[in-house]
Amino acid sequence: MPFVLEFPVDWVDTDALGIVHFTNFFRYFERAETEMLKRLGIDYNEIFEKGYAIPRVEAFCKYYKPLRYGDQAKVLLRVSEIGDKHYKYSFEILNSKTNEKNAEGYVTIVFIDKAKFKAIQIPNFIREKLELIK
Amino acid sequence: MPFVLEFPVDWVDTDALGIVHFTNFFRYFERAETEMLKRLGIDYNEIFEKGYAIPRVEAFCKYYKPLRYGDQAKVLLRVSEIGDKHYKYSFEILNSKTNEKNAEGYVTIVFIDKAKFKAIQIPNFIREKLELIK
Amino acid sequence: MPFVLEFPVDWVDTDALGIVHFTNFFRYFERAETEMLKRLGIDYNEIFEKGYAIPRVEAFCKYYKPLRYGDQAKVLLRVSEIGDKHYKYSFEILNSKTNEKNAEGYVTIVFIDKAKFKAIQIPNFIREKLELIK
Amino acid sequence: MPFVLEFPVDWVDTDALGIVHFTNFFRYFERAETEMLKRLGIDYNEIFEKGYAIPRVEAFCKYYKPLRYGDQAKVLLRVSEIGDKHYKYSFEILNSKTNEKNAEGYVTIVFIDKAKFKAIQIPNFIREKLELIK
Repeated sequence: MPFVLEFPVDWVDTDALGIVHFTNFFRYFERAETEMLKRLGIDYNEIFEKGYAIPRVEAFCKYYKPLRYGDQAKVLLRVSEIGDKHYKYSFEILNSKTNEKNAEGYVTIVFIDKAKFKAIQIPNFIREKLELIK
Repeated sequence: MPFVLEFPVDWVDTDALGIVHFTNFFRYFERAETEMLKRLGIDYNEIFEKGYAIPRVEAFCKYYKPLRYGDQAKVLLRVSEIGDKHYKYSFEILNSKTNEKNAEGYVTIVFIDKAKFKAIQIPNFIREKLELIK
Repeated sequence: MPFVLEFPVDWVDTDALGIVHFTNFFRYFERAETEMLKRLGIDYNEIFEKGYAIPRVEAFCKYYKPLRYGDQAKVLLRVSEIGDKHYKYSFEILNSKTNEKNAEGYVTIVFIDKAKFKAIQIPNFIREKLELIK
Repeated sequence: MPFVLEFPVDWVDTDALGIVHFTNFFRYFERAETEMLKRLGIDYNEIFEKGYAIPRVEAFCKYYKPLRYGDQAKVLLRVSEIGDKHYKYSFEILNSKTNEKNAEGYVTIVFIDKAKFKAIQIPNFIREKLELIK
């Protein structure tokens, strides 16, 4: 079951066409990621303090229908792949009221040693938690 | 009593100093404004469809303590002034956990005729609702 | 030959990891697109006034090396596909100084009737100009 | 004489009212600041490596006329005050073509010890360069 987060579109995220700018769907994915990690008990700051980081190495989104100011976005997020050194989120963004799909995509993340900026094995204390929501 | 909204800091809003970039405190104010108007029954889209708009003519913020990723922001928002053609929001941003003040500021808004981009009197159906939260 | 635009990384585009946030590579692509269209004599505002719009229907980016504040970004942009109703940009983002590749990706755009938000054939006055840089 | 930087409005910076969102005028100020410091030979990264940082403690902007996509922004920037531990930028944003003033404002900066996040005296190697453009 995916993790779900709903929130209203921010005015600042719209553009002169009257719709949410395409880059902001990735912002909305990330807002859901923040909440999901929090509920899983994964603490970004702890990850950084341990000398790790989790930069994104791939991002993709396909857009079906525009979101507008006044709409409520519903982000569905799941961990769709857990590799040795990377994992992948798949997300969908729906319009809360109509349940129409606005967009879907994925983001791939690599676990790194922050000082060397080199990929490393995902530590077990993270892997175990990610497995819970796969 | 001010309107209050709490939410976690978005990762994308931080900068390389490790703190929320100063411009994003205005984003956080605006997120609270969106929720407040919704609860007051003021609908931006209705305002636009009626041929009005509410651009900002002044923005000020004073920064006391940085917000960081992992922090929960608590925005306190009130309507502090209602003029003939303008109104003014005052906001404070606190750290939810510690209740320390991160920033405070104001934003002044002018009611305009959207086509002419000229200031006009605030219509009564808006004024009445704004008065409720002054 | 791709269109090339160089500019320094904006501080606001960095995040607490000290690198340009992944969403901002799409911002940088779009900044190059704006300049390229201008030099081709394609005017967005004219497009809108004629009742068209050009929303994005797909966005992809692969990240190789981080960009940091102080770096100069060099965006290489080309039109890699022109269909009946869509066209596609391919972009690379390099570090100006080292010429190392930071990221590459593509963005697919659909020509639409703005009022109906429905795909239409790319008008000839646009197609001809896009062909010039394919 | 103020430092001047011109660049086209970014599409992503507009909002559903068709104008540059008020927060983005601070982005435009900061883009000019980056270029100005570079030409003065002040290197942010060097400042950080020496253990300093320069967070903003006050930001103000007054908006006169909207900027739209297709406009060229012209930022005029000057150092208007240099105190013991702080300095202040004043900026104006004009429409390049018409020279009409879109906005003006200021940003106050405090020199800090990054580790303690406490204000300190502006070091001489910075003060001397700032004096040059006061």
